[in-house]
Amino acid sequence: MISFVVRGKKLAEVRKPIPKLWPGWALVHVRLAGICNTDVEILRGYHGFRGTPGHEFVGEVADVAGVPTATKRRWMGKRVAGEINVACAAYRFSPLCDFCKRGLKTHCARRTVLGIVAHDGAFAEYLTLPLENLHLVPSTVSDEKAVFIEPLAAACQILDQLDIRRFPNAAVLGDGKLAQLIAMVLKAAGSRVALYGKHASKLALARRAGVATKQVRGDASDLTRVKENYRLVVEATGSPTGLALAQRMTEPRGTLLLKSTFHGAAPVETWPIVVKEITVVGSRCGPFAKAIALLRSSRVDPSPLITRTFALKDAPAVIAYAQKRGVMKILLRNT
Amino acid sequence: MISFVVRGKKLAEVRKPIPKLWPGWALVHVRLAGICNTDVEILRGYHGFRGTPGHEFVGEVADVAGVPTATKRRWMGKRVAGEINVACAAYRFSPLCDFCKRGLKTHCARRTVLGIVAHDGAFAEYLTLPLENLHLVPSTVSDEKAVFIEPLAAACQILDQLDIRRFPNAAVLGDGKLAQLIAMVLKAAGSRVALYGKHASKLALARRAGVATKQVRGDASDLTRVKENYRLVVEATGSPTGLALAQRMTEPRGTLLLKSTFHGAAPVETWPIVVKEITVVGSRCGPFAKAIALLRSSRVDPSPLITRTFALKDAPAVIAYAQKRGVMKILLRNT
Repeated sequence: MISFVVRGKKLAEVRKPIPKLWPGWALVHVRLAGICNTDVEILRGYHGFRGTPGHEFVGEVADVAGVPTATKRRWMGKRVAGEINVACAAYRFSPLCDFCKRGLKTHCARRTVLGIVAHDGAFAEYLTLPLENLHLVPSTVSDEKAVFIEPLAAACQILDQLDIRRFPNAAVLGDGKLAQLIAMVLKAAGSRVALYGKHASKLALARRAGVATKQVRGDASDLTRVKENYRLVVEATGSPTGLALAQRMTEPRGTLLLKSTFHGAAPVETWPIVVKEITVVGSRCGPFAKAIALLRSSRVDPSPLITRTFALKDAPAVIAYAQKRGVMKILLRNT
Repeated sequence: MISFVVRGKKLAEVRKPIPKLWPGWALVHVRLAGICNTDVEILRGYHGFRGTPGHEFVGEVADVAGVPTATKRRWMGKRVAGEINVACAAYRFSPLCDFCKRGLKTHCARRTVLGIVAHDGAFAEYLTLPLENLHLVPSTVSDEKAVFIEPLAAACQILDQLDIRRFPNAAVLGDGKLAQLIAMVLKAAGSRVALYGKHASKLALARRAGVATKQVRGDASDLTRVKENYRLVVEATGSPTGLALAQRMTEPRGTLLLKSTFHGAAPVETWPIVVKEITVVGSRCGPFAKAIALLRSSRVDPSPLITRTFALKDAPAVIAYAQKRGVMKILLRNT
């Protein structure tokens, strides 16, 4: 099969045998894969990952190993999305790690992560995942929507971490893909959301999804002009400047939800967290079932975030394109 | 009266008239005042405060204004400690600010803070505070213990913010005065506490209070050797190195309680907060009643933290001494 792997700071095409399956695992034929900022970071050398990136996908089950025939029959040919953290149980580790014991599989101490940590991902014709990670995609949800299930679930994680009814107003900082999904999810959950971003074209996208927007330039003098305060501020800019602004915009005893994972040390003043007694909540992967329910009900439609779809074979060139100014979600189609 | 005010980076003695009282306020004759790291920061120019510092004190009510005679009689001559945030109601602001309306008086939008923000503090013969800020000191609690009520209340704030029963084990980073009070409070609340610090003599103090200790040097190579993980880590080092270590020591989905208010931007990697989904909780002033109860019951005895007591008149020289290596709590006695 064709697969794209990290070589230096680029993707290179390689041919590999179709991977062997552990018992209870599925082989998934990738239909559509999304490019995420994490993939770009991986190419910059973060995570130290040297395999096949790609963790947003929709695919079709092509094989299942080591399960009863009835189980296999239930999955074969089905359209699926997949949770990306592979925990102890899938590798038959015994005893389970402390986090798996507590049911915190996304924090499994031995986990691999699809396309990010020690497990080849979706920029390939096929990938493998344990059945327990797979979710059926309803027939009414198109591939173009289903490929957003993973990042939309990450946005939905906020709903699992906070009682959103306590936050009738919220600010989302950032106008990138994840920020926009978060704004959609909070809006669907009944919060009145204002999205703060730099790029007029991206803000226009958010407004078309019914989200109020405010344009800020990135420079310090402009940022000090932002006077609004919120009981909930979601930081999804991917930049340390965003974090400083988020701290300032969070009201005393408010909640600052951190979604950005920019790497490297950024100069941060932390005393406002103490003086205002802010609660900062880190937030990563989330509930797939909630994301699928939002897509099925059409309460969230992420497809306007797609800038372009390319063929999988063009992945090496497309990664560069995905980083261009104004480009939002780029998809790779495996035909 | 004699008062010490900030002049450049030093304290200078001035003579002032005894301050006039608003209705509902008390004049307090200071008996003993404590020097806190915040006072040192004020002299370095943080907070932009130019008046009389000092916010840890025990004193005696010398006058009360604008209250019924019976109320005045109840307070006159009594030994008191005082909450340091002075909110809307004390200044007769109407309507109250949004935070006072919600009962969050320590976050009052118009607040002054004794010895820190726009209100003269305890490095003087007398100070003023609203009666609503005062707490009677039980006769069994000595001045030397009572002067710790304010910082001990700040340590007790953790008990108001977290359900400490969820954290049978906790790490406190730092071996300074506040860190030691926090360790004592967590221990009294039933948590098994390990205190991590750099200074052998300070760690010995903590052990005498029954707290387990671990010595770490401050350099990066030594810090990476710390492998323990805790569900609760309290950062009270007052240094950005401590924050990085605290992040690493907090287990996934754990809580990192921030008590340090070092100023200036420090280089911080924030992605571990996101990846481990840590909750960071800022924590400032706390419940005086809990602190007084801990002292009265002798479940916490902060007096071994006192390095020396000086006369108030020596305040300018004593501030320099208080910053010397190995020095813990320094008190000023107003005789």
